[in-house]
Amino acid sequence: MRQIRVNLNGGYDIFIGDTLSGIKDFLTDSSKVLVVTDENVLGCCKMPAEAFEGAETFTFVMSPGENNKNLDTYREILKTLADNGFTREDKIVAFGGGVVGDTAAFAAATYLRGIKYISVPTTLLAMIDSSVGGKAAVNFEGYKNYVGAFCQPQAVFINTDYLDTLDEKEYRNGLGEGLKYYALIGDSVDLPLYAEKEKLEDFIYDCLSYKSMIVEKDEKDSFERKILNLGHTLGHAIEEDSGYEISHGEAVANGVLMMAESSFRAFRMSRNDIEKIRNAFIKTGIEKVGFSSVDDIRKYVSKDKKIAADGDIDAVLINAPGECGISRMSIDSFIDYVAESAVYNPYSDN
Amino acid sequence: MRQIRVNLNGGYDIFIGDTLSGIKDFLTDSSKVLVVTDENVLGCCKMPAEAFEGAETFTFVMSPGENNKNLDTYREILKTLADNGFTREDKIVAFGGGVVGDTAAFAAATYLRGIKYISVPTTLLAMIDSSVGGKAAVNFEGYKNYVGAFCQPQAVFINTDYLDTLDEKEYRNGLGEGLKYYALIGDSVDLPLYAEKEKLEDFIYDCLSYKSMIVEKDEKDSFERKILNLGHTLGHAIEEDSGYEISHGEAVANGVLMMAESSFRAFRMSRNDIEKIRNAFIKTGIEKVGFSSVDDIRKYVSKDKKIAADGDIDAVLINAPGECGISRMSIDSFIDYVAESAVYNPYSDN
Repeated sequence: MRQIRVNLNGGYDIFIGDTLSGIKDFLTDSSKVLVVTDENVLGCCKMPAEAFEGAETFTFVMSPGENNKNLDTYREILKTLADNGFTREDKIVAFGGGVVGDTAAFAAATYLRGIKYISVPTTLLAMIDSSVGGKAAVNFEGYKNYVGAFCQPQAVFINTDYLDTLDEKEYRNGLGEGLKYYALIGDSVDLPLYAEKEKLEDFIYDCLSYKSMIVEKDEKDSFERKILNLGHTLGHAIEEDSGYEISHGEAVANGVLMMAESSFRAFRMSRNDIEKIRNAFIKTGIEKVGFSSVDDIRKYVSKDKKIAADGDIDAVLINAPGECGISRMSIDSFIDYVAESAVYNPYSDN
Repeated sequence: MRQIRVNLNGGYDIFIGDTLSGIKDFLTDSSKVLVVTDENVLGCCKMPAEAFEGAETFTFVMSPGENNKNLDTYREILKTLADNGFTREDKIVAFGGGVVGDTAAFAAATYLRGIKYISVPTTLLAMIDSSVGGKAAVNFEGYKNYVGAFCQPQAVFINTDYLDTLDEKEYRNGLGEGLKYYALIGDSVDLPLYAEKEKLEDFIYDCLSYKSMIVEKDEKDSFERKILNLGHTLGHAIEEDSGYEISHGEAVANGVLMMAESSFRAFRMSRNDIEKIRNAFIKTGIEKVGFSSVDDIRKYVSKDKKIAADGDIDAVLINAPGECGISRMSIDSFIDYVAESAVYNPYSDN
């Protein structure tokens, strides 16, 4: 069992390993607990009964999928809490992937102006990413993560046994986001592909240690934290352009690769370093994609919520694995910068 | 012009007097601003054009009244922000009473996980109470203020000229909440009734100075801040019992009087002090009311969101003006304590 302390909001711990029974240490005998989860999770993952010993437990089962991460589901969770008389001393346990975690956390952040929640991520993506950072949000009217709050969990329990339940696509979803951490941190992070469990725990531990450090410096996403957006401006565009057929992690990995290829083309990255990133990308098993036109990029990037009032974006540029920086540029400059790497035949119709 | 500094969330200022043109100091040339208001406010209060000089201004007009402080209105505000491309650097101005302020602040707290908002309260109640403290919330499925967040404004502009527009009922609404401050702070606070404006500014200044001090100690409502709930457990019950015919301030004033009468009956308050509070209550011009049965109190108090997991409530008891304290007791004990003062003929059917 390993542990990471996150120094935010009074501090909380991430427990990695076979640790789920530890949940009960955060509950009192009279606590009510709402476990928010989805049908898929219930079909494959179990929680040990002793985790909730003594607490009065309720379950909210949402429909799976990104398009159910919305204000309607949020409202149903609130109704379940209110109808069952939940008070400020009661809790939510978010049991599932990022969609479950984000929706449940936003409900916890706002029910009675905030109750505590415990995060139990069940996918590799949620384990290395959305379980830490306190960005709780739902999609709104076609805009991704447009409504939400910053709120930290009371504890995070990462049970790596759950990874055995993931199919290959879901696994690649996590590895894709993992490619971002490889690009941010550099060679010290190994990108394991169906590696033995002990190795995977190292990988999760390294990603979370890095993310915690960044988030501690800048909880509210003012500056330092923007570095975690590497590959995400293009990644979100790829996700949306595919009608969410391409998963978040697969899209982000492609976004990271596009940013790296752009740096290589701009003589900011050595041939040796671009080869490292290309190889890491190949190791994830994710399919390489591209936009069909520059206008497609513009359409999605223009509504990215990271755009400043003056219409500029904070692009995260990469010079080498472990060497990234933030550069404010206009949308036009950004598109010029990435066009050759992000679009199939970018200048074919020019 | 007077100013109070509130040391929360980086600190912000409350400006009291003829100060509205100062709003522009918080806007940049490229800012978008959404003014959230209601039909009644627009009918009687004006904002000087120079307040928004240079900014691109949009207006959201909600239907007035407590029953429109809900997730539907909240959602419409979010949609207005998204459809007009508001970014994290744009702002909301809440221009109205508590209903407008609470709904707008919750939208600001959660749109893109939080954008800044400026509060311009137009009622006496909003000026002395909801404009400070950062409790943004809407009602949910019949539960008052059940969904919301803690978030502080960027600045508060209190233009006392707006008070000339209030009818007597709305004025009493403010004075009723003012009675709470009199009870909390003691004789140094004057309760002016249709007094000259200079006096009213003193009154607002005193209430806000006290409230800021308390909220600074305990933003998240853990302990010290509960003192501000004096009269509110019964007050909320009175409001709801009347189908919101009785305004918040009128209900709170009655709640404060009931708590004081209960203390007097329990030999915790002197005859001199209860007379002071009775006289202050009479000065507000608010009608005295009572519950028709003990069961009515129980029905409303049982769903008060301040109830702890063990079913107890933190009752705010008063021994004298300026001498209040928090006491945790069971709902039954609380009802026994207040029954004789809160119910018409409490034991008539026993």
